[in-house]
Amino acid sequence: MKLICAKNELLKSVNISLKAVSSKTTMPILECILIDASATEITFTSNDMELGIETKVKGIIEEKGIVALDAKLFSDIIRKLPDSDVCIQTDTNLNTTITCEKAKFTIPGKSGDDFAYLPVIERSEGIEISQFTLKEVIRQTIFSIAANENNKLMTGELFEMKENILKVVSLDGHRIAIRKIELKNNYPSRKVVVPGKTLNEISKILSGEVEDQVKIFFTDNHIVFEFDDTVVVSRLIEGEYFRIDQMLSSDYETKVKINKREFLDCIDRATLFVKEGDKKPIIITIDDTGMQLNINSQMGSMNEEIDIDKEGKDIMIGFNPKFLIDALKVIDDEEISIYLVNPKAPCFIKNEEESYIYLILPVNFNTAR
Amino acid sequence: MKLICAKNELLKSVNISLKAVSSKTTMPILECILIDASATEITFTSNDMELGIETKVKGIIEEKGIVALDAKLFSDIIRKLPDSDVCIQTDTNLNTTITCEKAKFTIPGKSGDDFAYLPVIERSEGIEISQFTLKEVIRQTIFSIAANENNKLMTGELFEMKENILKVVSLDGHRIAIRKIELKNNYPSRKVVVPGKTLNEISKILSGEVEDQVKIFFTDNHIVFEFDDTVVVSRLIEGEYFRIDQMLSSDYETKVKINKREFLDCIDRATLFVKEGDKKPIIITIDDTGMQLNINSQMGSMNEEIDIDKEGKDIMIGFNPKFLIDALKVIDDEEISIYLVNPKAPCFIKNEEESYIYLILPVNFNTAR
Repeated sequence: MKLICAKNELLKSVNISLKAVSSKTTMPILECILIDASATEITFTSNDMELGIETKVKGIIEEKGIVALDAKLFSDIIRKLPDSDVCIQTDTNLNTTITCEKAKFTIPGKSGDDFAYLPVIERSEGIEISQFTLKEVIRQTIFSIAANENNKLMTGELFEMKENILKVVSLDGHRIAIRKIELKNNYPSRKVVVPGKTLNEISKILSGEVEDQVKIFFTDNHIVFEFDDTVVVSRLIEGEYFRIDQMLSSDYETKVKINKREFLDCIDRATLFVKEGDKKPIIITIDDTGMQLNINSQMGSMNEEIDIDKEGKDIMIGFNPKFLIDALKVIDDEEISIYLVNPKAPCFIKNEEESYIYLILPVNFNTAR
Repeated sequence: MKLICAKNELLKSVNISLKAVSSKTTMPILECILIDASATEITFTSNDMELGIETKVKGIIEEKGIVALDAKLFSDIIRKLPDSDVCIQTDTNLNTTITCEKAKFTIPGKSGDDFAYLPVIERSEGIEISQFTLKEVIRQTIFSIAANENNKLMTGELFEMKENILKVVSLDGHRIAIRKIELKNNYPSRKVVVPGKTLNEISKILSGEVEDQVKIFFTDNHIVFEFDDTVVVSRLIEGEYFRIDQMLSSDYETKVKINKREFLDCIDRATLFVKEGDKKPIIITIDDTGMQLNINSQMGSMNEEIDIDKEGKDIMIGFNPKFLIDALKVIDDEEISIYLVNPKAPCFIKNEEESYIYLILPVNFNTAR
């Protein structure tokens, strides 16, 4: 095999491929990027058996061939090369020479025979949204998936199509995040659960541009994202996702409109007194004079008042400040509405159209105090 | 005590004070910043018993007093306050209330009675250089002090005054870094060894501006840096520093002029094949065709050629690539000169005026291969 590619093209493709390279595996071939130049195009493939990525690389094939190279070493070499044309050439033992200007690297290659190629997926009924939208939707929901694997379904996100709406849901037992996107067409009803890791990795590859599109296809076991020169295939998480509709009520006793920035900064200051792993709640008191935030810990105490627009009853309620911060950070609105029922019922942060809904369970602050 | 200071002034002074706060100590008072507003000025003092810093803070004293506050908590609070005037007030129990706009923090304070004030140092015969120069000199030498404390003197840097020259030297047994600065006046001969930690911390506080000056005073046991509104006092390291003059010879068999950037980039690429803790040398071959760099490891091999101007004999010599990289990174010259004698003798990288000299011992590459 002999290829000539610009350093920048290689680097772009290598960075994309790295997202699906296994870091801890007993199969060394999964630590490789497969370079396939056996036909008319150069493709890089990586696959950690849950997530697989195939991306096309611009370049010239001077001699056809296939080789698998250690992904970390290959990417480190490409990254440090001068900004010029790079020649990648294998000998009969798959020893691979990478030459750029006067620098010449030689590393061992592996045959592609053992490589786990991506499954062949029949694409039908794909939805199409902008890369910007997909990236935003992931950012605005991914923080509330569960970190541990006790409940596999909680480590993923529900993607639900219904008519012309894509609904994305994540939850971890303490909170729920929901984003709704309007699609251009109507689609048959469908629910799948996509691994959080897949979404994290894909959002790093997406350009985030409004004009760039991404096509999404579904099969029984896989989800496929197609964009630019790249195809990402991920396994789905099996099982039926949680029924969240019964948790979403539109009744409330107190409604508060508040400046998001002020609220977020104030909670952020309060967390100074919360040590890692500590379950110290922030206590919010809402009455006709405004909203008051309090936190008390061994280290000290803080209180601060914020102006609000209030409708309905007075209330005093406690929250894990992290859960409020996580939700507030991803909301782009300057002013937000908070809906409360009583100190033991979840609060909702949502907009009028309900294009986003964040549900957060309160903390019993009398005992926690 | 009651003070009013702008948030930014407080933050600046807190950040300076933090550099001399003990992180691991059995004396909680050393984890504090002492706020002294007992007279007409506000000063913050911190002292880890080796390094002490006193800095003046702009602000208004409404009620005189002294309090010691936990440095980390105090700095975290100041950092997160809105950009406005801050009121710091203590009650009779030294509980301290920090108020800024509508935010109000309360933290416990300590009396200043147990605080280790800075030693009173008589200032005489101080040298004066620009903050830029001092910061540069530290940056260009600090990397070659020894990391471990086996030999205390190697963890510091020699500051030697002689006539109108300040010479700064660091060494770790494998290499020596020397910088010479011309002073405005002549000074009596003097040698002191300044702890590396002191120099690291002070270079973080220095503005680095050419117009800003720093005065340096010496006593038998201390060095004092005075600049802006800040005084830094550090203990010196006791003992007689190594005699390096006998190691510095101006004889050479081979002299090479080389583009620094090219040389550095090339060695940087070669280090891809050097794992952490590995003693793999880079082998440099110099002959009439140029300089060739080679590295061989289990992971693979690299070689690269660089154009040079050569005088004298051909040579093949091995180096720890890290030592070359460390020196090359801090040299500002575009083209550098390397002086070599034989594969077992140290190489010198220095300029004509010898305002900088880097000595690096070679590695025996035949056995290491």
